[in-house]
Amino acid sequence: MTAPKYGTAEDFKLAIEELKDALPREGGVSTVQADLVIHGESPYHHHDCVDHSVVVYPESTEDVVKVVKIANKYKMPVVPYSGATSLEGQVGGYSGGCICVDMSEMDQILAIHEADADLVCQPGVGWMTINETLRDKGIPLFFPIDPGPSATIGGMVSTGCSGTNAVRYGTAKGEWFLNLTVVLPSGEVIKTRRRSRKSSAGFDLTKLFIGAEGTLGIITEVTLRLAPVLPTTVATVQFPNVAAAAEAVRQTINLAGVGASVQCVELVDNNFMVALNKFAGKRKYLEKDGLFFKFQGHSPTALKEVAKIVKGVCEKNGGSGFKLASGPAEADSMWDDRKNALNIGLSLYPDAKGWSTDVCVPVSKLPQLVHETKKDIAAAQIPSMIVGHAGDGNFHALLLYKTEEELDVAKIVADRMVKRALALDGTCTGEHGVGVGKKKYLVEELGPGTVGLMKKIKHTMDPLGLFNPGKLYPD
Amino acid sequence: MTAPKYGTAEDFKLAIEELKDALPREGGVSTVQADLVIHGESPYHHHDCVDHSVVVYPESTEDVVKVVKIANKYKMPVVPYSGATSLEGQVGGYSGGCICVDMSEMDQILAIHEADADLVCQPGVGWMTINETLRDKGIPLFFPIDPGPSATIGGMVSTGCSGTNAVRYGTAKGEWFLNLTVVLPSGEVIKTRRRSRKSSAGFDLTKLFIGAEGTLGIITEVTLRLAPVLPTTVATVQFPNVAAAAEAVRQTINLAGVGASVQCVELVDNNFMVALNKFAGKRKYLEKDGLFFKFQGHSPTALKEVAKIVKGVCEKNGGSGFKLASGPAEADSMWDDRKNALNIGLSLYPDAKGWSTDVCVPVSKLPQLVHETKKDIAAAQIPSMIVGHAGDGNFHALLLYKTEEELDVAKIVADRMVKRALALDGTCTGEHGVGVGKKKYLVEELGPGTVGLMKKIKHTMDPLGLFNPGKLYPD
Repeated sequence: MTAPKYGTAEDFKLAIEELKDALPREGGVSTVQADLVIHGESPYHHHDCVDHSVVVYPESTEDVVKVVKIANKYKMPVVPYSGATSLEGQVGGYSGGCICVDMSEMDQILAIHEADADLVCQPGVGWMTINETLRDKGIPLFFPIDPGPSATIGGMVSTGCSGTNAVRYGTAKGEWFLNLTVVLPSGEVIKTRRRSRKSSAGFDLTKLFIGAEGTLGIITEVTLRLAPVLPTTVATVQFPNVAAAAEAVRQTINLAGVGASVQCVELVDNNFMVALNKFAGKRKYLEKDGLFFKFQGHSPTALKEVAKIVKGVCEKNGGSGFKLASGPAEADSMWDDRKNALNIGLSLYPDAKGWSTDVCVPVSKLPQLVHETKKDIAAAQIPSMIVGHAGDGNFHALLLYKTEEELDVAKIVADRMVKRALALDGTCTGEHGVGVGKKKYLVEELGPGTVGLMKKIKHTMDPLGLFNPGKLYPD
Repeated sequence: MTAPKYGTAEDFKLAIEELKDALPREGGVSTVQADLVIHGESPYHHHDCVDHSVVVYPESTEDVVKVVKIANKYKMPVVPYSGATSLEGQVGGYSGGCICVDMSEMDQILAIHEADADLVCQPGVGWMTINETLRDKGIPLFFPIDPGPSATIGGMVSTGCSGTNAVRYGTAKGEWFLNLTVVLPSGEVIKTRRRSRKSSAGFDLTKLFIGAEGTLGIITEVTLRLAPVLPTTVATVQFPNVAAAAEAVRQTINLAGVGASVQCVELVDNNFMVALNKFAGKRKYLEKDGLFFKFQGHSPTALKEVAKIVKGVCEKNGGSGFKLASGPAEADSMWDDRKNALNIGLSLYPDAKGWSTDVCVPVSKLPQLVHETKKDIAAAQIPSMIVGHAGDGNFHALLLYKTEEELDVAKIVADRMVKRALALDGTCTGEHGVGVGKKKYLVEELGPGTVGLMKKIKHTMDPLGLFNPGKLYPD
């Protein structure tokens, strides 16, 4: 495959004029410098930022088609953009110039089918907005994929994301996205599937766009499946070390009759607990490695029974201070302590920036990986903390830095973390995606044949290489 | 795309000689007439059967590569074959001549990672064998995808199958298959992913082969995820009609605190109950439309609580005769009554053949679909029964026939059932796959753009059209 040849600067100027004609309403197209810059950077990552040439705000699938046709005419790259909470530089600009397609005007819930437990929406709506809407309407259903708070559906599909609920509900790569309406790089519009929960009518093209980071199409409508709301409660427990905590997790989630009641199990290290107490302004928790559990069950009695069994498993593995929330308010507050990890972590090193990176390994390998990573971080002497979705073998390190020197150290530590995960049959990213930050690891992780097939499919669908160039695929 | 051009009869003779050299062990290659015929037909469907030209029995990925390279050299089609329980003619021969790749010698469980709750196996092993092996070893884990009893893993991946457990555990298109080793049509071998439970390292090529019916690659190794065994029990209940039963299902599965405890919920019609009583030789159940439930929970007490709530929901919807199994033995026996549906159904019309076909719609549309289909079947006056995975909106009709005339009627009834499902935003097949039987519906269901993209990907991966030609893709 030869490198794609894009249009000239002159072509791109013409393209921008045509975009203005195509989306003539106020605010449909922006070339305001601040817009170009803000869409190219992200407070959440450390990758080089590239400005966009123009930002468009489509209001419909038809608008997106118009944009893509102009992109084709002038061979101008296109970068889809929704919640922009991605951590690996997925939505940055392309250095030769590109059109940023900001989906924020397409943020509507189009239909709620309560009886079918599904919902149709546009890509710019946030998962939290969906859940708040359902709650406000008194519909006892929710969407269980829970990445960072501001994430929106289009980006969640494109990242192949997950979150704390993945232990019980799986990830974006599971069966939560029933179908997608997609504008292909050619400008053609397809709907990948119908609305039934199941179908074995051939391989499911929905899956091709999950994790493709906007390189194969722009998602303009999504049907997603909902789950019944269940009674839940939260517990925390501390351990002498990460290995003991991880062993307790393993025993719990595979335990007949209990594993299925664990909705979430989060590993936090002693540094996180230090940060949490500092953030709370009081010594709220023991400053030891620990776990946060969220249990679910059909009744409060069932929840108490499950909690009691899990407490026993934890104590057998050296756990202490097992604390079960006294009621819903305390449960929410304890869970917020975990969900607020990024802000809490940043307080460890005031005014520092945070490099958040994630890897995932088979769950039995997690203790070794976390142990070695913590040793490595300690030797490197950078402020950090570890939080992880322990039930999935997935964890995040937040590495804090202020200076270029500290950033260089963080880079090396993050790189060693990935290599350690790969050596343990794991992946360079469990839920953050590839973007520009992880693409160099893809061949080692998947092999040249698998990456070659990914590139072949990309080339078949986007022969001009217009969609989100420079992301995902190794050079 | 032009039609693929295969080798001549003379080429295929040479190919068969080379296959014998490549797999020289006793039984590696068969051209015995009975083998060619038996691999081309299936007792489970009514499609025209085509014999294979040769059957090969590879013992390793390397053997499969050898076969595929010879197929490429002589442009001879290849049809992968494992459990052969598929219902839409997926494993039949190709009329111009083809190599049947029977995976029955590759039937080993290669590794069980209890701590990670995953297992590595070859494609020829059955899901029931996996679960029996785990039980015999005392490992409290199981593989929850449960299609027909003799189905094997390779075919289950390729069909994109599911079964009664899908309400709780989802389908083959979910996250149960962690990675696949695949021999591509070029002869290249790829492994789609590593063994971690989660990865967002790009779009997941594993999914491309799920439901591809062997048209994109031959699966030679699979890593699958296991779930903890839970206490379960079984209940049955009867209703005045299908609509009332379906409404009870809908209310139950979306009920906060209860829905998640429903592992299976199966709809059976009055005809099935008649057949069941006939098969049992006694009036075991009321001969009305009804439901079979399988509940799961962390303890026997929890199961009883859930059963009590569901009983209430059923009775509110006109249900009667709610019967909860008195213990594990009765639960197994009651569940066997449902799982044995095919044999039971055949007893309705002795010595008849059965046409088993399935469709799937959004769950709220199921009552209408079943009601209209039953009316249609009654008017057509063919013996039949309906059983369905009501929690998913998926149901099967078994249409019984002896004569060509009856078969013609069954064909028309089955066709109308599909068209009715498509009109209700459903799919032509919920879990049986496309094969030769359903490919004519694909464009109507998915649209020409989506089917066009499927064909484009097929052509990119298999430019010679060697892998399972005539299946899946509409002509």
